[in-house]
Amino acid sequence: MKLTTMQLRDLAIGAAFLGTGGGGDPYIGRLMVQACLDAGLEVEIIDPAELADDATVIPTAMMGATTVLVEKPPSGEEAVAALRRLEQRIGRRADATMPIEIGGINSTIPLLVGALLGLPVVDADGMGRAFPQLEMETFGVYGISGSPMAITNEHGDCVLIEAVNNRQMEWLARGVTMRMGGCAYIAEYSMTGAEVKRTAIPHTLTLAIRIGEVIRQAKANQEPPIEALLRFLPSTLYKFGRAIFAGKIIDVHRETKAGFAVGRARIEASHPSSAIMEIEIQNEYLVARVGGKVRAIVPDLICILDSESADPITTENLRYGQRVTVVAVSVPEIIRSPAALAVFGPACFGLAEPFTPIETIV
Amino acid sequence: MKLTTMQLRDLAIGAAFLGTGGGGDPYIGRLMVQACLDAGLEVEIIDPAELADDATVIPTAMMGATTVLVEKPPSGEEAVAALRRLEQRIGRRADATMPIEIGGINSTIPLLVGALLGLPVVDADGMGRAFPQLEMETFGVYGISGSPMAITNEHGDCVLIEAVNNRQMEWLARGVTMRMGGCAYIAEYSMTGAEVKRTAIPHTLTLAIRIGEVIRQAKANQEPPIEALLRFLPSTLYKFGRAIFAGKIIDVHRETKAGFAVGRARIEASHPSSAIMEIEIQNEYLVARVGGKVRAIVPDLICILDSESADPITTENLRYGQRVTVVAVSVPEIIRSPAALAVFGPACFGLAEPFTPIETIV
Repeated sequence: MKLTTMQLRDLAIGAAFLGTGGGGDPYIGRLMVQACLDAGLEVEIIDPAELADDATVIPTAMMGATTVLVEKPPSGEEAVAALRRLEQRIGRRADATMPIEIGGINSTIPLLVGALLGLPVVDADGMGRAFPQLEMETFGVYGISGSPMAITNEHGDCVLIEAVNNRQMEWLARGVTMRMGGCAYIAEYSMTGAEVKRTAIPHTLTLAIRIGEVIRQAKANQEPPIEALLRFLPSTLYKFGRAIFAGKIIDVHRETKAGFAVGRARIEASHPSSAIMEIEIQNEYLVARVGGKVRAIVPDLICILDSESADPITTENLRYGQRVTVVAVSVPEIIRSPAALAVFGPACFGLAEPFTPIETIV
Repeated sequence: MKLTTMQLRDLAIGAAFLGTGGGGDPYIGRLMVQACLDAGLEVEIIDPAELADDATVIPTAMMGATTVLVEKPPSGEEAVAALRRLEQRIGRRADATMPIEIGGINSTIPLLVGALLGLPVVDADGMGRAFPQLEMETFGVYGISGSPMAITNEHGDCVLIEAVNNRQMEWLARGVTMRMGGCAYIAEYSMTGAEVKRTAIPHTLTLAIRIGEVIRQAKANQEPPIEALLRFLPSTLYKFGRAIFAGKIIDVHRETKAGFAVGRARIEASHPSSAIMEIEIQNEYLVARVGGKVRAIVPDLICILDSESADPITTENLRYGQRVTVVAVSVPEIIRSPAALAVFGPACFGLAEPFTPIETIV
């Protein structure tokens, strides 16, 4: 399908929702892709099933601090250069690009690359949400090597990483990204069509578009948008969604530790209850607790939404006094397997509690 | 010529002298090369003039903190892997390797590579001394690109840097080296035989061997070794050498700033004089002043030698109470040209004084 301007707007809302507080605001990515559409370029989104098993897919993304990206928006050529360099390295031309991360701004970078190169974008990704590190990909969980990986910047520098494992790739690439000014563009996890079908989370681009659409249409019909969203989710792979808390933000603590945004938000329930939900932040919302008891935990989605508009609130936009609703959503089984939890389950973020599916907790 | 055990010992002394306080102690490098000789491997040193103009030369080195190297000595395969990866990248096999830096431990890494691969080592280098950064090479001064560059570690990770200029290459490679634990192995500045002849400082490996030999023979003959050394220098490209100060170390200040060893040493002249020489350190000895007046300045060599043994004292081995002689030596014209001074002259280290040749100062 060809992406429309309306779908692009919806996508930005849905990708922010799937970002669970992290991944960066897709707004700037939307503007960049919109500029392509305005210039007459097209973004073709294809179903993973349409890929030939021996097709070559090269995912593209930005890496680093989205706060930096906002100050120096990319031309798009940076990510194109990363893809081209990786093509040269692997000796094959890309038949398509793909997001590595559907949550946040990285949902839009492959659209930009696809528009500029006339390359289709696969409707799938490797996180199904946002995660802070490159090894936290279902691609890697199910055996795809992230290396070789190309990293580029706006000056024309290129770094190729050939690491012994995906954790080490992340470690080296993070160092390079910091030296490139905190924000760089990457191509990695090159794979075949068959490997996409086996390891990617399918239909997450169209899912993000549909989430945005459901919220938009509910508002147009003057229906409560969060309720509309929760009614919609069972028809997707993210089949279980609940509003698990509602109230007012009464405290936000944030700091930057070793390159991560780390902190905690406290939400006081609306009158007459005085319960308090505490949400731990490490780039994304990791765990929500009430009275010390887990109410939702990574990798299930924890989304803080404006109670009125259903606008997703990212960690950097949390403010005292905001009226919010916390929505927890089950993730697809491919993100919950023991192999997946070993890479991005609670223990990977230093949490003591085991993963418990939201539908079990509720 | 085939390197002998005796020449290797002499080289370690001469390379420490040419390190002007930096570049790391060649001792551990000597042990690694000696192990190769003991195992029956050979190190063939060839004159640059022996290179065919279209020969491919790939210099090899270690990068980072020699203090780390001492704690995890390389197997030699790390630098071999860097050379092999760069061969693959440029699509040519190396006909020889070469030091990028004759001062300190990097005089020995190419010998290790040469021994392991049966590859000749060119008797030349790109610094003619030690410098802290990769862009500070006569190769770069005279138009050779340091990129593409390969960086390896002991785990088998490899990073290829393709930077827009040599300064940026240094910046990115330094970040990677830090992530690799502070010490890594590199291949860079690949060039032709004709380019070696045009841009390298010739005969510095044999110069280092001869310096060590002159000191050793003087000691064997119970002659003052520093005097013997100063008598020898005029027969080399480093033609002007003087003992510019002698006395006792009375103060050493050292700290690590942004990855560099920065500091100052003060030497009090021997009785009856009470003059004090102050030497500024940034990895190497950069400038020597008495009463605020420059007595020697980078890129000329400033070497602090044990007054008795003529053993070169590196910055990290400076101690209160040492009896030392400061020797200043002129460097070849290829290191003193305006183009060269623009890359590693006094201003590049934040010094206010212009370069003045040691023979003019004296």
